[in-house]
Amino acid sequence: MDSTNNIIRLREQMTLDGIDAYIIYTADPHNSEYPADHWKFREFVSGFNGSAGVVVVTKNHAGLWTDSRYYIQAAKQLRGSAIELHKMGMPGVPDYISYLTYLLPSGGTIGVDGRTVTDDEFRSMSRTLGNFGISVNMKLDYAAEIFSARPPLPSTSVWLMPKEQEGSPRATKLAAVRKAMRDVGATHYIVPALDDVAWLTNMRGSDVEFNPVFYAYMIVTESDAHLYINPNKLTAEIGVALNADDIVTHLYEHFERDVAAIPSTARVYYDPAQLNAFCAAALPAECARIEGRGIVTKLKAVKIPQEIANIEKAHARDGAAMVRFARWMTENVGKVRMTELDLSARLTAERAKEALYISDSFGTIMAYGENAAIVHYEPTVESNAEVHPQGLILIDSGAQYMDGTTDVTRTFALGPLTDKERLHYTLTLKGTIALAQAIFPANTRGTQLDTFARQAMWRYGVDYGHGTGHGVGYCLNVHEGPQNISKKLVDVTIEEGMVTSDEPGIYVEGSHGIRIENLTVCIETKRTDFGTFLGFKTLTMFPIDKTPIITELLTPQEVKWLNDYHATVLKTLEGLVEGADLEWLRKACQPL
Amino acid sequence: MDSTNNIIRLREQMTLDGIDAYIIYTADPHNSEYPADHWKFREFVSGFNGSAGVVVVTKNHAGLWTDSRYYIQAAKQLRGSAIELHKMGMPGVPDYISYLTYLLPSGGTIGVDGRTVTDDEFRSMSRTLGNFGISVNMKLDYAAEIFSARPPLPSTSVWLMPKEQEGSPRATKLAAVRKAMRDVGATHYIVPALDDVAWLTNMRGSDVEFNPVFYAYMIVTESDAHLYINPNKLTAEIGVALNADDIVTHLYEHFERDVAAIPSTARVYYDPAQLNAFCAAALPAECARIEGRGIVTKLKAVKIPQEIANIEKAHARDGAAMVRFARWMTENVGKVRMTELDLSARLTAERAKEALYISDSFGTIMAYGENAAIVHYEPTVESNAEVHPQGLILIDSGAQYMDGTTDVTRTFALGPLTDKERLHYTLTLKGTIALAQAIFPANTRGTQLDTFARQAMWRYGVDYGHGTGHGVGYCLNVHEGPQNISKKLVDVTIEEGMVTSDEPGIYVEGSHGIRIENLTVCIETKRTDFGTFLGFKTLTMFPIDKTPIITELLTPQEVKWLNDYHATVLKTLEGLVEGADLEWLRKACQPL
Repeated sequence: MDSTNNIIRLREQMTLDGIDAYIIYTADPHNSEYPADHWKFREFVSGFNGSAGVVVVTKNHAGLWTDSRYYIQAAKQLRGSAIELHKMGMPGVPDYISYLTYLLPSGGTIGVDGRTVTDDEFRSMSRTLGNFGISVNMKLDYAAEIFSARPPLPSTSVWLMPKEQEGSPRATKLAAVRKAMRDVGATHYIVPALDDVAWLTNMRGSDVEFNPVFYAYMIVTESDAHLYINPNKLTAEIGVALNADDIVTHLYEHFERDVAAIPSTARVYYDPAQLNAFCAAALPAECARIEGRGIVTKLKAVKIPQEIANIEKAHARDGAAMVRFARWMTENVGKVRMTELDLSARLTAERAKEALYISDSFGTIMAYGENAAIVHYEPTVESNAEVHPQGLILIDSGAQYMDGTTDVTRTFALGPLTDKERLHYTLTLKGTIALAQAIFPANTRGTQLDTFARQAMWRYGVDYGHGTGHGVGYCLNVHEGPQNISKKLVDVTIEEGMVTSDEPGIYVEGSHGIRIENLTVCIETKRTDFGTFLGFKTLTMFPIDKTPIITELLTPQEVKWLNDYHATVLKTLEGLVEGADLEWLRKACQPL
Repeated sequence: MDSTNNIIRLREQMTLDGIDAYIIYTADPHNSEYPADHWKFREFVSGFNGSAGVVVVTKNHAGLWTDSRYYIQAAKQLRGSAIELHKMGMPGVPDYISYLTYLLPSGGTIGVDGRTVTDDEFRSMSRTLGNFGISVNMKLDYAAEIFSARPPLPSTSVWLMPKEQEGSPRATKLAAVRKAMRDVGATHYIVPALDDVAWLTNMRGSDVEFNPVFYAYMIVTESDAHLYINPNKLTAEIGVALNADDIVTHLYEHFERDVAAIPSTARVYYDPAQLNAFCAAALPAECARIEGRGIVTKLKAVKIPQEIANIEKAHARDGAAMVRFARWMTENVGKVRMTELDLSARLTAERAKEALYISDSFGTIMAYGENAAIVHYEPTVESNAEVHPQGLILIDSGAQYMDGTTDVTRTFALGPLTDKERLHYTLTLKGTIALAQAIFPANTRGTQLDTFARQAMWRYGVDYGHGTGHGVGYCLNVHEGPQNISKKLVDVTIEEGMVTSDEPGIYVEGSHGIRIENLTVCIETKRTDFGTFLGFKTLTMFPIDKTPIITELLTPQEVKWLNDYHATVLKTLEGLVEGADLEWLRKACQPL
């Protein structure tokens, strides 16, 4: 890999096309959280392999913009390259768009591959740059020219979800989509998100790590549906099943051509936060465009009772695996040599013993001591810390099972703690409990609920930089929209049946990190003259370490919640573990 | 007033113009909360004089859409007319835009006066209707044709704020505006909001009730500023003052012409939520448009120390007037005959005795018993209730002083209460206190804080339909943007120096209504390794009735807040009232 040479080749191409700057995003055409290697052009050009970052090349400068999670890694990976690191979020560091408005003259042009940016992002960028007289050409696919030895698109097989696990049948889902289309007057609906396609077709795949999805697009019309997919991924059985629901398959490569061929009389629904700018531009100008949040995205967020019942079974097995792991770790720390990577492998191995396990649902965050202060830490060979009987270890992990997706964070005391660690642990726990206990009217949005999790720590002048809760898929992406419990103003109400995480945390650089996360499902709690009120039922089944708690800081209601939760955990898991593991569980679930 | 005849004339005009429906909004070209009578075309056409409502006339139907505040009043005022009432918010009642999409065929056209709708609203409406093939012609000013005996625009004089009360000098304000313009690359900035113009010119007027504003527009450029105003409003002294700051005056009527004449090379900043659609369309198509929240709106929301010191003085005098009023009411109820209107007049008279009083800041809500359940109740001759020594009275009132604007709500027990009234009073008070005590990091938005005020009542399945807090002007509009503490996702952070109300409530139709409102100023509370944390200082100085409180439901922190607040109120007001009033105040401020 030679970034200097890559930059030279990019500049040659820029000169040919007469552009002043080229932007390289980290994205595939589906706006996936985990793009396949085929789409890792930014990594190819720069050598930086973090999950977030933007490379901008101008005639005289090449820069990588990335956030605080990756300052250290990026600095290391860019060493000796022609690319300068811009630390996003640091005071005085302009974002790359502002940087370009300062640098380029009015009349300048920027190039980008419109497939790697959503229509929303592209319009916002174009508007800001346009105010400074700078235009954007988004039809410049430099990866096609420069990305040598580029990995092909994945061609793994897909499978049909079994009846007991599929949730609603495909036909029911398509009918619900078409009803929503009629409500807004749409004749066509474009589905670009991989998890939306997986949900709507009741199929799963393994094209990328952690998310059981496959590369495909769909276009749903009033009478039929079109699936754009590599035909080698399909079996005869799948073909029959799709056919029965009037889903026609096409070559993946024909999607953009067919978008451009949508009749000009069509009224096309799409989500500009999902569809890439290139496709949005391919749509005939005469078509009416109806923009809104992905119809499937909204439908799949609300889990049906069969799905919730399955998810509860998956969480019970997941909890049992966690008990076996945690019992071993807490009993052997200080006796057996163990590192973060050892523990991470052991935890995955325990989960893999459980029925219906597919894979982990994301890279395990196994973070001991000060490593836990790095919010998205994943141990590597270089960072791998040895774990000692002292301080805290933060473990954020989960799995894909055929009957559900799990995601749980626990922070364990492995030995003596400082007063600050105990205070921060207790404030975090108060946050987790406050959100778990919240009662709120229907039509409440996540950002209104975020305050529940933070208010106790705010009184102590403490806060955390990440969100409090994300949606979770059903045997699908562990980060699933549209709902979100965070400071962000996301205009999505929390509805009965939505599965969302509850995960406040506190991080002190160079010292410790704490997070306590449960998954929850939203349930109705009461109906009064003032309307319907909702709340959360906790799905995660694993005890919360009691040893770091400063009990005097908990209210009687908080103590009751914790004791009730532990009673439920014990009841749910005691038939699933045995011997020393069961003993450990019983102790962990004793009332405070 | 003959609504039948008006509808006939509207339909004649619609036929001439070839349109299928005409929409009449309740608005002036400045999007003012209180439009002058000149702009009350909707009232002229329909006879309905509520503050909110939209009339839609089609070939076969004429309808008024209004919300629950006005169901009863609108039904009464529309009786015998050709206009049907559509109750917005009732299940199964489509809003008027959906109604039009159902009714009109694709290819239909709707007419509206673009001066009475903001650019934002117009674009949203056009987009929705456009999805159904319906277009909107916004250049149809039917008021000009049909509004007979139309009142002229007000021509009252304006005055300059005295130096001790003006806040920052005009030149300082203009410099701050121009800096903000430079930051976004704007050469021109259009100021349509009347209170923004008043703030920027350090002038006030009396063109409408309650808000000390005057009809005018401004256009600020890099080097000068243009004020569009009826010259009869100005004195020679004002002319000199404006001239000194390079503010050129023009005829009010020339504003639209001059917007259309802005050079095509200009980069024009405007707020599409403030500027009317007609003006936005008048702007030359070649101009770069930079959209964002009103620059003045943002600047004027943050009060400077001189303004805050003045506001505190205004609140002390306002509290003294309230004490004289409340002492008389509570001591004489049941002895002297009193009605809501009597009490309202008495309260205004007490305020008018105070120094620097200009007017009330809105129509006093003097609501006894079940009348208080009507959130925006104002007593009329028909509704005027006699007040008895029993139940609750809700009083929401305020005044404009040269040194500040007040807005306070108290709910008083006049005699025996029901258990439900006491519970609801206590839950409301817990809400007021929770927000007053909140500590939160910088960059927190109002919707995140709204939860503080509601969480206690949510546990009881209780909620309220209005916002919790609005911004308040400095000798300006009692409802001032941009900040807002409510369920609405308003992307404005609460900043040090902002003055905002804190006013949860509970309303039970046919029974009672409760609201407890203080104005607050946002202050810094602490700086930690996690950032700057903010909180609120209460500005309103008047005791909160303790008799309805169920003390066992208050936490020790809540009791402490109330006692501390009452100690401050007593200290602030004891030098301003005397005799029986002082006795009453001392008792009202005793610790719980």
